[in-house]
Amino acid sequence: MTNGSIGQGGQSPPARKQSEQRSGDDELARLALSAAFEPGRERLGAAVAQYGAVGVVESLSAGNGNSIELAEYQQRWSSRDWLDQAKVERRRCADEGIRVVVPGGPEWPTQLTDLGDREPLALRVLGGVDFRAAAARSIAMVGARAASQYGQWVAEDTSARLAQLGWAVVSGGAFGIDAACHHGALAIDGGISIAVSAAGVDRPTPASHSSLFERLYRSGVVVSEVPVGAYPNRHRFLIRNRVIAALSPIVVVVEAAVRSGALNTAREAQAMGRVVAAFPGPVTSSMSAGCHGLIRDTDAALVTSATEVIDLVVPRTTRIRGRTDELTIEQDQLLSALTSTPTRLGVLVGGLGVDERHAAADAFVLERLGLIRRLADGWVRG
Amino acid sequence: MTNGSIGQGGQSPPARKQSEQRSGDDELARLALSAAFEPGRERLGAAVAQYGAVGVVESLSAGNGNSIELAEYQQRWSSRDWLDQAKVERRRCADEGIRVVVPGGPEWPTQLTDLGDREPLALRVLGGVDFRAAAARSIAMVGARAASQYGQWVAEDTSARLAQLGWAVVSGGAFGIDAACHHGALAIDGGISIAVSAAGVDRPTPASHSSLFERLYRSGVVVSEVPVGAYPNRHRFLIRNRVIAALSPIVVVVEAAVRSGALNTAREAQAMGRVVAAFPGPVTSSMSAGCHGLIRDTDAALVTSATEVIDLVVPRTTRIRGRTDELTIEQDQLLSALTSTPTRLGVLVGGLGVDERHAAADAFVLERLGLIRRLADGWVRG
Repeated sequence: MTNGSIGQGGQSPPARKQSEQRSGDDELARLALSAAFEPGRERLGAAVAQYGAVGVVESLSAGNGNSIELAEYQQRWSSRDWLDQAKVERRRCADEGIRVVVPGGPEWPTQLTDLGDREPLALRVLGGVDFRAAAARSIAMVGARAASQYGQWVAEDTSARLAQLGWAVVSGGAFGIDAACHHGALAIDGGISIAVSAAGVDRPTPASHSSLFERLYRSGVVVSEVPVGAYPNRHRFLIRNRVIAALSPIVVVVEAAVRSGALNTAREAQAMGRVVAAFPGPVTSSMSAGCHGLIRDTDAALVTSATEVIDLVVPRTTRIRGRTDELTIEQDQLLSALTSTPTRLGVLVGGLGVDERHAAADAFVLERLGLIRRLADGWVRG
Repeated sequence: MTNGSIGQGGQSPPARKQSEQRSGDDELARLALSAAFEPGRERLGAAVAQYGAVGVVESLSAGNGNSIELAEYQQRWSSRDWLDQAKVERRRCADEGIRVVVPGGPEWPTQLTDLGDREPLALRVLGGVDFRAAAARSIAMVGARAASQYGQWVAEDTSARLAQLGWAVVSGGAFGIDAACHHGALAIDGGISIAVSAAGVDRPTPASHSSLFERLYRSGVVVSEVPVGAYPNRHRFLIRNRVIAALSPIVVVVEAAVRSGALNTAREAQAMGRVVAAFPGPVTSSMSAGCHGLIRDTDAALVTSATEVIDLVVPRTTRIRGRTDELTIEQDQLLSALTSTPTRLGVLVGGLGVDERHAAADAFVLERLGLIRRLADGWVRG
């Protein structure tokens, strides 16, 4: 078994080259780790946060998983040459125009950091638009596979209107509501849709959606945290939902039975402090029972149109880019505290007298208003 | 013009006779005032609260409306012999089996006192059940005249289930949702329904509902604050809604367009601190738009079934009559403070350290649990 190129090489290359090498190594390490282990494992995420992906790969490759509290990961890692396999995947990505997108990289949607130790290690991205830019102004909309005609109509019509208003629609590519969401957004000239797939990005899932995926590759993006060519499984379908929830400031459920994956996505969103909304339907329809439960039993909002969805995300009074006179006091203070030097929220919150969670929510609003930007090492104005 | 019998008679009858006389006079005065003036006038209600109905009639009949701040009522009062007319109405009521029910009387639902100065002066009641007993365990359910098939089905099915669970259904007797509510409750063996009419109780409104009203007379009650034989008008339809809102602990809206009388009833209920709930429907139906607005923009609850309606009124844990172990501390303290001697809440609240509004709400719960009863001069246990 070989370690690949990571942490090797006796000679010291020039600084710039070394940095490129390191970033390439990080990408490779992340591809390898995300191929070896199922997504969303917090212990692994915590180790990567602490030691870096390269550091984790080095420890596992040296048989020292125990030293970074990943003893139970050791056996699977040692069972195969995951780095070699990652190189093969990287070449295949390059050949097929699939981008490998990693945290800190230019196409990485920084809101995914809200997932903490469950942040994806890497995403494979296939499609004609910039993933980060599309996700920055997106609405997640999900729902039942066994959708009614009513639900599909609502999903398609609402997505189309969201796209007309310049919002990308994030969904899961599945039968029923998901497909209607993608179709609605893509039906609009310039409309963008993002599918977060539980399978490899090059493997339309379900297979009968290959023409939908072709349209997504052209006018949107398909993203996945599992390797190119990978098949989905039950765990992958469920764990994928947290990515949908994290990408957008809101998750809208169009139709859902009482037990439904869409409700799992809604719970993920609520746990992360995202807004959740649901469309009502006839009380006689079991496909609306999950939506009614969300509205009745949680703080999910009832919505009946695309503009109501957007109202929940961007307060009506602050929708014009750059208008600051309608911000809350806390948002205004946060804006004033930021400069052109990247600053982390954790550094600011003490002086602002707010907790980090609220500051993060305010930063999200200011970012959507185009007033501040999130860089790898903190927030800046403008 | 004559004053009728009120405040007249030079000889002093025996005490008991005098008391009967006074209560008869009060009834007659209330019939006269409620025939002379449109319902719901606060200035008139305040004067009746301060001087008694008999006192108000005496002042107006003496031309002294000004002295009790009813100057603008004087002209209409003096235009006709309202007391004489009231005697005619009372005879007609007696002939037709219509009860005249007044505040403090045994059939008066005491929750109507929550209307304050807008409490009806008197109600004419026609039907086979005790109005007060039926109203004590009732759910108000209202909605659009131009209802959809869906809405009518929901109204009828929900009412039938409420009736099965032993609740009377209060509505307005109108086309559409109202009629479906009455029909649903009456379809159940022993099911009770209460119609609050904007016309005289003996005048089915709309006229095409005469067979529905016949069923209500038999298995429920029709009540009205306007005189027997009176026609409805726009004001009477609207002002009647406050009575529907006051009779039950909850108002449920089944279907309502954005502008709808049903929403007026809901607002009345919310202003009085009653619970309001609404059934959702397809977002494509204008008949559900008012319901969705209530849920979205007010603190109205979303409900999808009869049991959910009842859950909002009687906490699940306290639904068994006489069970006291699940009461709140405040409800338990209130229960303990009451004896077999009627006591007003105003007397108790100081010792309990709660405000009267909360005590009233707790008393309402205890009453529905069958633990306490409201008498004319206060609350008693059992």
